[in-house]
Amino acid sequence: MGSLGSNNNYEDALISSDTIGKVITCKAAVAYAAGQPLVVEEIRVDPPHKMEVRIRVLFTSICHTDLSAWKGESEAQRAFPRILGHEASGVVESVGEGVSNLEIGDHVVPIFNGECEKCIYCKSKKTTNLCEKFRVNPMKNTMASDGKCRFSTKDGNPIFHFLKTSTFSEYTVLDSACVVKIDRNAPLDKMTLLSCGVSTGLGAVWNTADVEEGSTVVVFGLGAVGLAVVEGARARGASRIIGVDINPEKQIKGKSIGLTDFINPKDLDKPIHQELKIREMTDGGVDYSFECAGNLGVLREAFLSTHDGWGLTVLLGVHPSPRLLPLHPMEMFDGRRLVGSVFGDFKGKSQLPHFANQCTKGVVKLDEFITHEMPFSKINDAMQLLVDGKSLRCLLHL
Amino acid sequence: MGSLGSNNNYEDALISSDTIGKVITCKAAVAYAAGQPLVVEEIRVDPPHKMEVRIRVLFTSICHTDLSAWKGESEAQRAFPRILGHEASGVVESVGEGVSNLEIGDHVVPIFNGECEKCIYCKSKKTTNLCEKFRVNPMKNTMASDGKCRFSTKDGNPIFHFLKTSTFSEYTVLDSACVVKIDRNAPLDKMTLLSCGVSTGLGAVWNTADVEEGSTVVVFGLGAVGLAVVEGARARGASRIIGVDINPEKQIKGKSIGLTDFINPKDLDKPIHQELKIREMTDGGVDYSFECAGNLGVLREAFLSTHDGWGLTVLLGVHPSPRLLPLHPMEMFDGRRLVGSVFGDFKGKSQLPHFANQCTKGVVKLDEFITHEMPFSKINDAMQLLVDGKSLRCLLHL
Repeated sequence: MGSLGSNNNYEDALISSDTIGKVITCKAAVAYAAGQPLVVEEIRVDPPHKMEVRIRVLFTSICHTDLSAWKGESEAQRAFPRILGHEASGVVESVGEGVSNLEIGDHVVPIFNGECEKCIYCKSKKTTNLCEKFRVNPMKNTMASDGKCRFSTKDGNPIFHFLKTSTFSEYTVLDSACVVKIDRNAPLDKMTLLSCGVSTGLGAVWNTADVEEGSTVVVFGLGAVGLAVVEGARARGASRIIGVDINPEKQIKGKSIGLTDFINPKDLDKPIHQELKIREMTDGGVDYSFECAGNLGVLREAFLSTHDGWGLTVLLGVHPSPRLLPLHPMEMFDGRRLVGSVFGDFKGKSQLPHFANQCTKGVVKLDEFITHEMPFSKINDAMQLLVDGKSLRCLLHL
Repeated sequence: MGSLGSNNNYEDALISSDTIGKVITCKAAVAYAAGQPLVVEEIRVDPPHKMEVRIRVLFTSICHTDLSAWKGESEAQRAFPRILGHEASGVVESVGEGVSNLEIGDHVVPIFNGECEKCIYCKSKKTTNLCEKFRVNPMKNTMASDGKCRFSTKDGNPIFHFLKTSTFSEYTVLDSACVVKIDRNAPLDKMTLLSCGVSTGLGAVWNTADVEEGSTVVVFGLGAVGLAVVEGARARGASRIIGVDINPEKQIKGKSIGLTDFINPKDLDKPIHQELKIREMTDGGVDYSFECAGNLGVLREAFLSTHDGWGLTVLLGVHPSPRLLPLHPMEMFDGRRLVGSVFGDFKGKSQLPHFANQCTKGVVKLDEFITHEMPFSKINDAMQLLVDGKSLRCLLHL
């Protein structure tokens, strides 16, 4: 794994300087049908249009949202052929007209929740990372400017985009609002983690909840996002960090990051509610709970595991079920609060560069999150590792 | 109506100084059965025990929570005979052992949501007005220290307490945690409003939401609490204050306080959702919405009427229905938030004295809230005015 101090000069990865403004032919992993293996093949990538950039992807990793779209879990997601992927890092290869804050050769991280820096949301004094035009939108599968694709097969058929990023390709085109420039000294390989999972979990602790030193925290669901919550709480100096997961293997990983306690609901002697166990362990409940499981029963336990008067529950898990919040209005009067957090409430372009520096300085530790590395050609094996719950993040080298 | 500048020397209202430490016989309005007229009769009031005080009630008013208990709407509320009432003002007549912050003759306001100033909630740096022992508890009908009543009929039968206050009596006994000393210059008659309705509504704006100057606000339900929200928003300099109520008469009252716009859902031409109308009026939604109706459909409209990204909905209405929150977990990811507010998040003993001064100075205007005045003997007429929706607050003189 590359790291700070390794060669951070990635310009030689670019095909050549004369690709600028031209169609590039390169390798990508194309999803042709729901659940079918991705096909690694040559595709064509158009040059960036106005306010767009084309980047050379050097590293990419896979997140559960990629799996959902690959499986075509919801009808709206079934857009094929498509290039998935949204966690990555790379180098700017060319910039479209009007792009003033990115240059060829910049080290960058793509973000699915963009920041135009001009709309009422981006300019609001209120804390929000929604953007009028570039907020997260899993249904969007073309470019914002013209509703067209920048990818095509060798036969000239369009290939759909995914989450405004489509990083399972040696080259990809993004709106400049979705590209964050990071310091050249940041370890570019690990920066893929900032595109989604780690920013989502850690930002929920730092930005959404703003956890203070000495706080007590519980995290339900210890995937990459949940473990990033643990890392964020550790970095903030939380006094107690309780992890809850039905997979006993998560205990070891969790403790290596910073968990002080682990609860496997399957191990509880009596059919005792987890939230009662947690309230008992923390003299009335934790200050902050994080729901990273996407399960309504867990959401209720997360809510009730907090201390009345001030407990805050942060929702991170995706809840595709049509069922409503399992909370009674009167339960809101006990002083417990519930908020959702998207992309860790990070304003990507403004705030991720600082976050990247925090990682470089070791304030945030990223090593534990990359459990596997493979060449890009083995992307289907990497997908399977995540499907089987064997990896947190598998870093693919392009 | 008394006001600033009137005679604020109420000591002569006390029966005599030799009542201290003795049982007092005085008049009270006793509820003997659900929905039956209150009986104004002589009762006995014990002297205060340790950490309790006895006060001479000079003014009391009636709130919907009194009506609910009077009607015996829930089984747990059916404790009879009982002395209802929780909005009042008066003078301390005697203090029990250990009470150090109240003296005979102090002008006071009772509060149903006490502050012991010692428990983990009262001492927490987090913003909460829960108190371990004296938080609001509609089920409690005796004193905290010994589980007994301080009231009895002339035959010696105990009479239950209500909301730790029981103000429909010339004299009442309260835990000192539920008695707030206010400045002698504050208009004592209007201070009854600080016991519940006005503090609840105005505090939701000032403390819970912390509405900033220039904000946009919508209030669903324009009873006394909703109108106190309007007054709080006006005092904070909100740029637009929209009121929603199905009673067209509320428009006049609301505008006299500070409403800039009024929506009667029954007047809308098309079956258009109110929240869509409000979003249209405010270019995307209000900054803050307040649900003072206790209706789940209204709660959902209140939530959706706020601007995504930062909108905050504050719940004030009581929702006795067992139905759950009509919100989908994914709707929490649009940046809209929902919080409950009890007693306007005021820490009663610490913060109401300042609030009373704000009222005396005219920063907060209380005149519009007292629509009727009567002698205490006409309390049943006053109850009926509220049942019929004809009064906001009827001030009863004892």
